[in-house]
Amino acid sequence: MKIEYHPIGIIHSPFTKLSGMPIQPAGAAGVEGTVEVFPKYNDGLKDLEGFSHIIMLYHFHRSKGFKLHAVPFMDSTPRGIFATRAPKRPNPIGLSVIKLQKIQDNILYVENVDILDGTPLLDIKPYVPEFDEQTEARVGWLEEARKEVSKRKSDQRFK
Amino acid sequence: MKIEYHPIGIIHSPFTKLSGMPIQPAGAAGVEGTVEVFPKYNDGLKDLEGFSHIIMLYHFHRSKGFKLHAVPFMDSTPRGIFATRAPKRPNPIGLSVIKLQKIQDNILYVENVDILDGTPLLDIKPYVPEFDEQTEARVGWLEEARKEVSKRKSDQRFK
Repeated sequence: MKIEYHPIGIIHSPFTKLSGMPIQPAGAAGVEGTVEVFPKYNDGLKDLEGFSHIIMLYHFHRSKGFKLHAVPFMDSTPRGIFATRAPKRPNPIGLSVIKLQKIQDNILYVENVDILDGTPLLDIKPYVPEFDEQTEARVGWLEEARKEVSKRKSDQRFK
Repeated sequence: MKIEYHPIGIIHSPFTKLSGMPIQPAGAAGVEGTVEVFPKYNDGLKDLEGFSHIIMLYHFHRSKGFKLHAVPFMDSTPRGIFATRAPKRPNPIGLSVIKLQKIQDNILYVENVDILDGTPLLDIKPYVPEFDEQTEARVGWLEEARKEVSKRKSDQRFK
């Protein structure tokens, strides 16, 4: 079974290289970017500006092939790919919870962007704490490193 | 540009009809399901059991076509599709934060399942509060209804 999607827009950020990037929005505090939604989808942005945060789903377009184990940026041990957020996944879909500043026509002005410039956008969803938040979550191998995420940067390992 | 994905597994739940379903995991407290990951991806599940919650991305396989406005289950006013979690989206990708009980071989035993039985699974990611949580978020049109989500059920509107 094949599932076919099409980009609904393009994400623009200061990050043009895979190395040296923040590895999550928490490490990209204050980094501004824009999201260009293709004009044909413009009407779908109605009411979105009321939300302070949005979930962006995007295609890791620079990620070729996949591996079932990856050494995450936060670790030195290979982990199962589904226990990581690494990009070389069977379906290379990225997910970031991003701060929305404003929308002008088909352009979203966003903050805390940890995404490569030129990345194809697949979907935008409103972030709703009642749907998406699990404050008491256990985080397995990330337990020790979880507070460090804002300080780490990417390197070339997922090129 | 076309983006092609393939299911990595199938989600099994008690919900075989589109109507009468919980509309978010918060409304599916205690509802148990299983996620069958195809054996070829088994190795990618290593280390996942340490996480109490996972993000599942899946394909809304029963959703045909899309509309740029939708009247969400939580509302009576048409909203821009990207300001809702409705399934008839340009790229019909669903997202749920689900509680993980245990993993046996290639089967995940999960809780709080708001997903239709037989839904194709696209990706599993570990849920990490430091990456994914925005406790102070504003939620636009959902502001009044946000506390009601656990009581609402779906109907036929997105058939």
